Amino acid sequence: MIDVAIIGSGPAGLSAAINVYARNKKAVVFGRSITTSWLYKAESVNNHLGMPNMSGKEMMEAFLKHAMEVNIDIREGRALQVLSMGDHFMINFENEFIEAKKVIIATGLPKSKGIPGEEEFLGKGTSYCATCDGMLYQGRDVAVVGESQEAEEDANFLADLCNVTYIPAYALPENHSLKKNIKTLQAKPLKIMGEQFVSGLETDKGNLPVTGVFLIKESVKPNALVYGLKMDGSAIAVNRKMETNLKGLYAAGDCTGTPYQLSKAIGEGLIAGLEAAKES
Amino acid sequence: MIDVAIIGSGPAGLSAAINVYARNKKAVVFGRSITTSWLYKAESVNNHLGMPNMSGKEMMEAFLKHAMEVNIDIREGRALQVLSMGDHFMINFENEFIEAKKVIIATGLPKSKGIPGEEEFLGKGTSYCATCDGMLYQGRDVAVVGESQEAEEDANFLADLCNVTYIPAYALPENHSLKKNIKTLQAKPLKIMGEQFVSGLETDKGNLPVTGVFLIKESVKPNALVYGLKMDGSAIAVNRKMETNLKGLYAAGDCTGTPYQLSKAIGEGLIAGLEAAKES
Repeated sequence: MIDVAIIGSGPAGLSAAINVYARNKKAVVFGRSITTSWLYKAESVNNHLGMPNMSGKEMMEAFLKHAMEVNIDIREGRALQVLSMGDHFMINFENEFIEAKKVIIATGLPKSKGIPGEEEFLGKGTSYCATCDGMLYQGRDVAVVGESQEAEEDANFLADLCNVTYIPAYALPENHSLKKNIKTLQAKPLKIMGEQFVSGLETDKGNLPVTGVFLIKESVKPNALVYGLKMDGSAIAVNRKMETNLKGLYAAGDCTGTPYQLSKAIGEGLIAGLEAAKES
Repeated sequence: MIDVAIIGSGPAGLSAAINVYARNKKAVVFGRSITTSWLYKAESVNNHLGMPNMSGKEMMEAFLKHAMEVNIDIREGRALQVLSMGDHFMINFENEFIEAKKVIIATGLPKSKGIPGEEEFLGKGTSYCATCDGMLYQGRDVAVVGESQEAEEDANFLADLCNVTYIPAYALPENHSLKKNIKTLQAKPLKIMGEQFVSGLETDKGNLPVTGVFLIKESVKPNALVYGLKMDGSAIAVNRKMETNLKGLYAAGDCTGTPYQLSKAIGEGLIAGLEAAKES
């Protein structure tokens, strides 16, 4: 079993990882490519002490290099769910189930704000995970909303099971990888409709009569990732030890609220890492 | 009037300063030489993300360089007292009185633990400041406990007013700068004695019958520096915005408690700096 599983490979997650390592415990970072970090796109950062006037890309590369030098185990992909099992945690990582003694959430800020009906119908026709829930929608009409090109894989997986309409939140390139039996619709999803269960998706190009809506996001909201997680507005509620309301679960970085700044993320990552590495 | 006065020139203080500057406000750092920072003496630090395997000296130099590049005003010396005036603060800096709208305490950890009687007799025969209180002890017998060689200056100042016994907490070098009329005693102070006022100093080499004890320290405890400051054990009590119980007064770094780590200090410095720079 992993000592500390860290969800997120941005500055907070990597700072947590090197500090778990510094306490001689095994940390595994589950995250997406560093190019997905907000920081990566920053032209110039000059308010992180000791690293003046660097681009976000240069910084993220320096952080990754540091983590690599101490042999941090980084696995690229999406963590879909974190379940507390009482004395440990179970993480659904790309549909593989992984056990960890402690978990640190460092998922940053969700890129999209979500649409009305999304949370209400979660598990009732709305899903964040094609491979988890695809079988439930066999033979049915579903919409797949893809936040980035990586979501095309999820759509392809579903296309073998259901009738898929794919709605990219990006400009679909000519050389996309979608299967031939997938319909595409360049539209803006507005609302998930339904009574008890999903009955359609409203878009700015008209309504789609579907019974399943897959929202394939770069990251999901923390309380969708972890059942029972206490929020404070849109931020994870934490104390000064970076403890959440769930025993053994910590959070660090932008997901704990403002200011959305590098030094804060690295500082909180350190605290969460050292706390999680303590014997409980 | 200064927008934000920062007491302490370690990593937390300098991080606060560059972030006040980033918000286009005037920060002044009041602190001692960077060589007095705990970090400066660290042989190697490897758990601050992005700056792998550097000596504490190299790090402090990088931090100072960054602060210098953005023209942070750093004044070397000791802040002796911070007084809240309601809507602003008054700082006694080497006996010069300086006004500031907001204050950030980033004084790190006191080097000495203090001795019994020290707090009890503060203002009743015990003092941290020779130039502030010297005149009150004219013609009397006083002991001066010096934490570092810089305290010899304070002893020399007092030697023109009182009968001084100097007790160095370090090995007094042959080439010390003490005046000829100062007695020296290489001893360990154990307890400040007295009823209502100080009547003597107990040491491991016997008792000194004095009515004044000057404790010349590298830094004083935060609640001796700021009257009415709420503590949580030996740490300054703060919330997640680094606010203390006093309006307009913030704290950051080791003085807010464990973990005593660089990333935490820099993260807290950023938060305190950005919060203090907000219009109130």
